Amino acid sequence: MKAFKIYCGGQFITTQKSFEVINPFDGKSIAKTWLASNNELDLAIRKAQETEKELARLPVFEKYGILSTIARQISEKKEDFTKILCQESAKPWRYAQSEVERAIQTFTVAAEESKRLPGEYMSLDWTPAGKGKEGIVRHFPIGLVAGISPFNFPLNLAVHKIAPAIAAGCPIILKPATSTPLSTLMLAGIIDQSGLPKGAISILPMDRNTGNHLVTDERFKLLSFTGSPEVGWEMKKEAGKKKTILELGGNAGVIVTESADMDLAVNKCLVGGFAYSGQVCIHAQRIYVHDHVFETFTTKFIDAAKKLTTGNPMNPDTDISAMIDEDNALRVEEWVQEAIHGGAKALLGAKREGTYFPPTVLTETQRDMKVCALEVFGPVVVLEPYSNFASAIEKINDSRYGLQAGVFTNHIDEMNVAFNDLKVGGVVINDVPTFRVDHMPYGGMKDSGLGREGVKYAMMDMMETKILVKNRD
Amino acid sequence: MKAFKIYCGGQFITTQKSFEVINPFDGKSIAKTWLASNNELDLAIRKAQETEKELARLPVFEKYGILSTIARQISEKKEDFTKILCQESAKPWRYAQSEVERAIQTFTVAAEESKRLPGEYMSLDWTPAGKGKEGIVRHFPIGLVAGISPFNFPLNLAVHKIAPAIAAGCPIILKPATSTPLSTLMLAGIIDQSGLPKGAISILPMDRNTGNHLVTDERFKLLSFTGSPEVGWEMKKEAGKKKTILELGGNAGVIVTESADMDLAVNKCLVGGFAYSGQVCIHAQRIYVHDHVFETFTTKFIDAAKKLTTGNPMNPDTDISAMIDEDNALRVEEWVQEAIHGGAKALLGAKREGTYFPPTVLTETQRDMKVCALEVFGPVVVLEPYSNFASAIEKINDSRYGLQAGVFTNHIDEMNVAFNDLKVGGVVINDVPTFRVDHMPYGGMKDSGLGREGVKYAMMDMMETKILVKNRD
Amino acid sequence: MKAFKIYCGGQFITTQKSFEVINPFDGKSIAKTWLASNNELDLAIRKAQETEKELARLPVFEKYGILSTIARQISEKKEDFTKILCQESAKPWRYAQSEVERAIQTFTVAAEESKRLPGEYMSLDWTPAGKGKEGIVRHFPIGLVAGISPFNFPLNLAVHKIAPAIAAGCPIILKPATSTPLSTLMLAGIIDQSGLPKGAISILPMDRNTGNHLVTDERFKLLSFTGSPEVGWEMKKEAGKKKTILELGGNAGVIVTESADMDLAVNKCLVGGFAYSGQVCIHAQRIYVHDHVFETFTTKFIDAAKKLTTGNPMNPDTDISAMIDEDNALRVEEWVQEAIHGGAKALLGAKREGTYFPPTVLTETQRDMKVCALEVFGPVVVLEPYSNFASAIEKINDSRYGLQAGVFTNHIDEMNVAFNDLKVGGVVINDVPTFRVDHMPYGGMKDSGLGREGVKYAMMDMMETKILVKNRD
Amino acid sequence: MKAFKIYCGGQFITTQKSFEVINPFDGKSIAKTWLASNNELDLAIRKAQETEKELARLPVFEKYGILSTIARQISEKKEDFTKILCQESAKPWRYAQSEVERAIQTFTVAAEESKRLPGEYMSLDWTPAGKGKEGIVRHFPIGLVAGISPFNFPLNLAVHKIAPAIAAGCPIILKPATSTPLSTLMLAGIIDQSGLPKGAISILPMDRNTGNHLVTDERFKLLSFTGSPEVGWEMKKEAGKKKTILELGGNAGVIVTESADMDLAVNKCLVGGFAYSGQVCIHAQRIYVHDHVFETFTTKFIDAAKKLTTGNPMNPDTDISAMIDEDNALRVEEWVQEAIHGGAKALLGAKREGTYFPPTVLTETQRDMKVCALEVFGPVVVLEPYSNFASAIEKINDSRYGLQAGVFTNHIDEMNVAFNDLKVGGVVINDVPTFRVDHMPYGGMKDSGLGREGVKYAMMDMMETKILVKNRD
Repeated sequence: MKAFKIYCGGQFITTQKSFEVINPFDGKSIAKTWLASNNELDLAIRKAQETEKELARLPVFEKYGILSTIARQISEKKEDFTKILCQESAKPWRYAQSEVERAIQTFTVAAEESKRLPGEYMSLDWTPAGKGKEGIVRHFPIGLVAGISPFNFPLNLAVHKIAPAIAAGCPIILKPATSTPLSTLMLAGIIDQSGLPKGAISILPMDRNTGNHLVTDERFKLLSFTGSPEVGWEMKKEAGKKKTILELGGNAGVIVTESADMDLAVNKCLVGGFAYSGQVCIHAQRIYVHDHVFETFTTKFIDAAKKLTTGNPMNPDTDISAMIDEDNALRVEEWVQEAIHGGAKALLGAKREGTYFPPTVLTETQRDMKVCALEVFGPVVVLEPYSNFASAIEKINDSRYGLQAGVFTNHIDEMNVAFNDLKVGGVVINDVPTFRVDHMPYGGMKDSGLGREGVKYAMMDMMETKILVKNRD
Repeated sequence: MKAFKIYCGGQFITTQKSFEVINPFDGKSIAKTWLASNNELDLAIRKAQETEKELARLPVFEKYGILSTIARQISEKKEDFTKILCQESAKPWRYAQSEVERAIQTFTVAAEESKRLPGEYMSLDWTPAGKGKEGIVRHFPIGLVAGISPFNFPLNLAVHKIAPAIAAGCPIILKPATSTPLSTLMLAGIIDQSGLPKGAISILPMDRNTGNHLVTDERFKLLSFTGSPEVGWEMKKEAGKKKTILELGGNAGVIVTESADMDLAVNKCLVGGFAYSGQVCIHAQRIYVHDHVFETFTTKFIDAAKKLTTGNPMNPDTDISAMIDEDNALRVEEWVQEAIHGGAKALLGAKREGTYFPPTVLTETQRDMKVCALEVFGPVVVLEPYSNFASAIEKINDSRYGLQAGVFTNHIDEMNVAFNDLKVGGVVINDVPTFRVDHMPYGGMKDSGLGREGVKYAMMDMMETKILVKNRD
Repeated sequence: MKAFKIYCGGQFITTQKSFEVINPFDGKSIAKTWLASNNELDLAIRKAQETEKELARLPVFEKYGILSTIARQISEKKEDFTKILCQESAKPWRYAQSEVERAIQTFTVAAEESKRLPGEYMSLDWTPAGKGKEGIVRHFPIGLVAGISPFNFPLNLAVHKIAPAIAAGCPIILKPATSTPLSTLMLAGIIDQSGLPKGAISILPMDRNTGNHLVTDERFKLLSFTGSPEVGWEMKKEAGKKKTILELGGNAGVIVTESADMDLAVNKCLVGGFAYSGQVCIHAQRIYVHDHVFETFTTKFIDAAKKLTTGNPMNPDTDISAMIDEDNALRVEEWVQEAIHGGAKALLGAKREGTYFPPTVLTETQRDMKVCALEVFGPVVVLEPYSNFASAIEKINDSRYGLQAGVFTNHIDEMNVAFNDLKVGGVVINDVPTFRVDHMPYGGMKDSGLGREGVKYAMMDMMETKILVKNRD
Repeated sequence: MKAFKIYCGGQFITTQKSFEVINPFDGKSIAKTWLASNNELDLAIRKAQETEKELARLPVFEKYGILSTIARQISEKKEDFTKILCQESAKPWRYAQSEVERAIQTFTVAAEESKRLPGEYMSLDWTPAGKGKEGIVRHFPIGLVAGISPFNFPLNLAVHKIAPAIAAGCPIILKPATSTPLSTLMLAGIIDQSGLPKGAISILPMDRNTGNHLVTDERFKLLSFTGSPEVGWEMKKEAGKKKTILELGGNAGVIVTESADMDLAVNKCLVGGFAYSGQVCIHAQRIYVHDHVFETFTTKFIDAAKKLTTGNPMNPDTDISAMIDEDNALRVEEWVQEAIHGGAKALLGAKREGTYFPPTVLTETQRDMKVCALEVFGPVVVLEPYSNFASAIEKINDSRYGLQAGVFTNHIDEMNVAFNDLKVGGVVINDVPTFRVDHMPYGGMKDSGLGREGVKYAMMDMMETKILVKNRD
């Protein structure tokens, strides 16, 4: 069996505790890897701290060189990355491919942004107290970063912490999800050869106990967590003095208005609703359709959903495959059943087979059913009609969460209202909330998070502002 | 009779050549003032140059103080300014009032922007050649500015040159229109008491021969001209080494689509078409209406135009009064007659009475009639139907000019097409091209001009970029 | 006796618990005011929440009008504000005056910044996934803000929370220090008449128990605290889901190099060391002087310090007066005695008289003495020699704190090293760390805080980023 | 003999007029190429115009792809480019290599900047007139660009027009210097295969008559000229309505102060003074040295200059080779002789051999000698002592030109004075004026030019600002 050593303080090592990574689609073991213990974590922290000064002083052309090299190397091993992603996460090939492309782009943008840290020049003589003085504001690396990334985009969501850290000049210790650590460890091999000072990055699978040190250890200056709301908000309380960035989930909604292009809306909602079995933070979970077009939309949507191809994620035609594990499939089943018992109608799907849960469409749901109110993180979509735009906005906002929302409309006024009134981090016109490109600011309002990622934004969170006050004359 | 001395090198003076300013409405003399000769201009230039160093070194709080003081002083003399504007230009009271408010705002914004000159900080080590180096970019006053302002906004268009010049730290010599110099000379009285170094600003009415030195004299580093296209482009050729900013006119167009709010469109077009007898650079001259709503729009528009109040500009109810002089009224009459003889229909107006020209609406015009192809600068509006949006865009673009355009629509797609495809400096959705606020970038494409005004933009044109390259480590 | 009602949900009210505010200089009661209980706080919260929508929708010109009006009103009551500040805090008249000027400036800058929220436009088509799309990033008010301000700048440090909150469109409940609530309550009178929606601001003295709800109540979306490090970091842990901004203190240092202008350094250090009895977050506590000039500096510094005028803060000549209360004076005395017993030499002062503590200069101290290692918050300065610049930098950095630092030098290299290597939020060349103007980013690294104030920066912390993704073509 | 076809409207063509390109070092013919006539130019213009719409609509990822591809292709042919540069311009191998590296960097930066066009978002409701409105400012390609580039950096100065044009979405017709067209034509081969729409770029050697159409033809919207001041300013007058950017030369100066690192100053001045025989716009022509260190500097400088290696540019060790042609060598000889006859002393060099002119150092010159007052564009350096910093600043400023200046100092005050008072586009501390990296703003004050290059700055000049005004609520 293949083995992936873990990357600790600039060395690929094994530990006393190995484990196997399982392909959720066929339940077979893919490879063996290891869990870091407190000892390895401590070593990684100390090695990382040793690199701080050197990292902070790296000239731009070296950072740029390192980040570009990594991007190019991933690009040259696209197939390998896609394959391991498919296997460890059961993400269908096409989506896995797109994730690899995005990881390349994330490193590319980080390379470019490392040149463009937004220094500020300011006159300080706005009152006589500042006469003859000027200020220069620059941003300096905050220090050691703790990154925790989830299973659903094992590569690119880790990269969204690693690439900005390199660009900002911070060492980082990243804990990948233990179910999907392989693509990140493959990336470690590339980073190790990129010229980055050894120890600047460690990639360490850990159990929850060890991982908790990422939250509590005061040697970390920033905790950047992507994962579930419950865990995230708990971490914030335990984080001590460190800054905390939380990229959590939600129950993102879509509004399909009367003026919408129906075919566009259907096709986009299909992807937003079922891509990677809805295991996406910005999964299009709730779709509100104007009642004049509700039937049309519903018919088209169900018809299209029926045509989705199920199967082995390695098959390039597969649209939907297994969920990450049976526990999750069971949970989704339970939530769907709860809804049906409460009066909801299943227009499609709803029947689990092992780790596979089919594309499921519910309607006539109630606002407090779990499939509506919580993050379903499964291939379940709720379709409901609405009668006027203001009420559709209210329905989207009637949630603890606020990550992104999609609005299909051709009306300027509706676009304006949506942007002003939706309590979400991103309002996407004529596309699903699932839309994300890697340089845009991304993150949630309300319980969906704290702070924004997107390369430039993540970099800024990893830096501290310092002003130089000096004489000008 | 009242006399307004001219403001030369920090002194209020008279010269050998006096002239009287006439109220276009009743033909009566308002006040006497003087023309600067080459001698006075030369003196003003030399005095201005003497202030350059001091101006360049004024701390921000002093510039801010001067500009705020001027704004406050105008505010305290609002009535006086409004009255003199009414009298010298026959601008109806309400519009004169609004011009005075805008002049206050222009000085206020200039005060604020003087604090916020956009210095840049940049790393220079993008390649090994710049290792250890950083750059600081600041903007320094370009030197003496020549300003030439027109009769139609005698106060605020002069202020759009004076206020940025003070904020940028440049001396300026301003030539107001000889028909309307009084409001600017009243402003000179305020500036003189504001604490600005004497000589930094001169306001000198001149004849064309003397005025030509503003264009050709190499002691001026920037010529900022607002006026007619013919004159402007000629000046550019004569300007030698100096930078030239041209704010010229056009034959601005409006598109009223099917999705437009008709009443809004009618009311806005009324103002855009007839305010100050159309003597406005962004006068709404050509209105293209979707053929499904052409009749509705036309009926409402004509009805509303008939209700406009004619008369003495000093009357607060007056909507439309005399044109600036009989020559202009005659020219407009001639152009309208040319159109009618060529087959156009006059739906309203078209009959001159002395300096008064009534609100005039034409239709069934041809693209090369003067009322369509040239800048009519009179209360004449051309109404034509269109059948699809792309053709409406083409009609607007079928012009030598490209200042601003208005589009009444509620469709996102039409907004996008308009912004992408209209060859104008400003695309105004759901308002007339006549819309302008004083901090926005304003200026034309094609023959409508070169460069942009709007306080911050005008300031930047009055400054030169300098980079400091220094070691960072 | 004068009474100051507290400002709760748009009403001036009294409560069941009154208390008297004492002049620390003479121990006499100045006025009576009231403590808010949990009930009043809850009422204020509910009233504040009711204003959220209206505040978020205030047009810029209204916010600008409100903030400008407040600035102008304070300006018209400068004397009253200065007097009450003197009385409640024993701050000498001259420094009280300057604080009032700064409060005016803080409101002025907030007015201006409300116009200039940094929206972003970005192309999203950096990869084919974003083809035809663009993004518009705007910032929206985060919601209800809890502000806690300290006794040492009772007016301006409260204003640094209130003014940005208005500019950002957030309601705020401010808890002033209970020892110095009067100037802020006087400000409440002005705000109440400014046109701001009633309830948007409450100013409520509270005891610690009630005040703790500002930290823990989840209806607040941001906690902005200025005060001591111990309290601040505890609050962060209790803050739940809300964002937390901490402006804490430190033991700021100064380096006086051989190339320094000695007289400038002495004069500035005098102010930095003893202004308001050192009760300033950026008090110049530790001064490191190059050993070649140590004696010169010390002699001049002691001579000058001896000439400081002691006495009634209301006297315009007074340089130094009473500390805020006897407890603090006792604490400072104890720390100074600890140092002296540990071997430090007192070159000046060191003897308390009631609430008065004299300008005190120590030398031959040890790094872990309280007067070195902790925030002394009293008129105590430690003078020590150093032999090379690198070691001086190390000494400054040898601290849990990192707010600001001053460096007197004329060498570019030393300026660069200082900016790169000092672990502080602000490096001030040729001035003391005590330098602050109200628009610059201000705040600490390490235990000195989290986040930056300064009008624009505080505003940004009070807003959430939202992106609109839309089609461009 | 090798032949390089010219690149016209997307085709490699020959014309009726061929000519040979000569190696200035050995006088031998390198290759044959052709001159475009008016016909070919007209064809190129028409083809270019046909691409305008397509270019304006290119998504960012396509522009980025094209520009990155070109950068990568040059990189893969580094040797070929270096060789042809050496041959056509007699630029020593090392400097030719560095020019090729810079051309790669210029394309790389243009790729990155194409993503980051600085759109602006602004609120427009600063007064009630703008209530409910917002503005979005974007920049649109200005249209067809005419580029004229000089012989001294045949590749990279052409690339400074071509790369921004592609990034901005403008077609461009570039006229390379007829003495050095080969490297640019080699680049044409790469561009042709890059995916850029055919016709978007033409590279056409022309004689002066044909070239003059680039200046006068109104189909060009921007003229971007790099070359001599005389020609440049004449062009501005003939340019009609088009924008004109002039990157001209100067007689750049250096100040070496007492606090300077002498060895650094000597080494840098050697490169600034003699690299590529001083045929560089920012050649360090005048060096002012503090009189306390004048002798030291002079001795070291002459010693070092004597060690420069002369010879074949293809030899990697060569420091200095032939000038571009004998005419120029003759002119330099004449100027040097004029100086010597006028009393100047030659400390080194001064004797021409054919096209070779040796490193020449003069002292005791007069301000109005040609070697001081004009742009010598040859390996001639004037060394003069100064007694105080202010007078050194004056000497640098005593010139019609103002491109860049170098100041060797370690004093903050001198750095400040230099930045504030030197009338140049770039002040370089502790380096020669010859310093340039490709993303920094670069260009001259006074007679040295109009506008700034540097990728982002050049791009902005190639774009027009358009504002979209729309409702926000």
